[in-house]
Amino acid sequence: MKTEEAIITRRSVKHFDPEHKMTQEEIDKLFSLAILSPTAFNLQNWRFVRVEDTNLRKEIRQHAMDQSQITDASLLIVLCANLNAWKNPQRYWKNAAKEVQDFILPAADSYYRDKDQVQRDEAMRSCGIAAQTLMLSAKSMGYDSCPMDGFDFDQVANLIQLPDDHVISMFVVIGKGIKPAWPRPGQLGLDELVISNTF
Amino acid sequence: MKTEEAIITRRSVKHFDPEHKMTQEEIDKLFSLAILSPTAFNLQNWRFVRVEDTNLRKEIRQHAMDQSQITDASLLIVLCANLNAWKNPQRYWKNAAKEVQDFILPAADSYYRDKDQVQRDEAMRSCGIAAQTLMLSAKSMGYDSCPMDGFDFDQVANLIQLPDDHVISMFVVIGKGIKPAWPRPGQLGLDELVISNTF
Repeated sequence: MKTEEAIITRRSVKHFDPEHKMTQEEIDKLFSLAILSPTAFNLQNWRFVRVEDTNLRKEIRQHAMDQSQITDASLLIVLCANLNAWKNPQRYWKNAAKEVQDFILPAADSYYRDKDQVQRDEAMRSCGIAAQTLMLSAKSMGYDSCPMDGFDFDQVANLIQLPDDHVISMFVVIGKGIKPAWPRPGQLGLDELVISNTF
Repeated sequence: MKTEEAIITRRSVKHFDPEHKMTQEEIDKLFSLAILSPTAFNLQNWRFVRVEDTNLRKEIRQHAMDQSQITDASLLIVLCANLNAWKNPQRYWKNAAKEVQDFILPAADSYYRDKDQVQRDEAMRSCGIAAQTLMLSAKSMGYDSCPMDGFDFDQVANLIQLPDDHVISMFVVIGKGIKPAWPRPGQLGLDELVISNTF
């Protein structure tokens, strides 16, 4: 599917066929595309928790306003990020020339060190970018998706045993939609959303 | 261009043809696709500041480690978000049925009210998602892009006269690349990035 068509036809679908199973090949393809998403300083700070366990899905659903897509979609992905990914930047630059490493590695350190909010912002931005890669990839493969943040973040963190230096950004569910999304309910115009030079 | 090809061939390009001008039609298409990105509660909290003014570009470049793409790319977009978008949710749901509005509007209020970090996280997530829509749209239209957060956020906020209840998330520059990106410098494997059920 063409990129433009995937962007136009992607909608947040709430109802999925609980019987549909995606193949391992499809799942591998989705994640392989997701990790081509850009990250600042190439930190690859995202971690994708794929929840397959049926009971764990049911428990998460209880902390997500009982939304059926949590248990019915083929894939439930909890997008998390490692807040400390910046601490070992040489891992992500090992194939780069020495002069590139000599510039990038100290720059990453000074960008994040002792800056909790900057680390957290990076987590949310990176996961947002990767979420859209997942959703557009899914659409182009014939699947529907829904991004979600209507859940109890602390309870879900407990359930997935999230490490202390990681944070949850959002869920993305992917599967065979069985009911179309609502029509877009009230979209703003470009005249309000695109600002020229200054506010 | 197919979605998969756009995802695979999109790279963070640093060198752009300063003479290239995008047509108004191309620019309108890019932004029209960007605003089809999903947002929580359909808040459409992003604001896209398009910096056209040559002097303003030069000033921003001074606060962005003198990176040449700031002035040389055809488009410099400062992705911002309105932290208070949740305060008027009826605008975004005016075409929805009353029972949908009766559920969604109070839910949005209680999700964001008095929760500064939640509001900020939403800003970063939404802008991340929209940034990837912009970058993949650009690629499919034959353009290159670069996401950037290596700049002085406070100085740029002053320069674009950012309102107090808005926040900057990142830049996206778009244009005709004239030098390919570095080869990917050290990518992690799916075995590390995809976690099954629990950490």
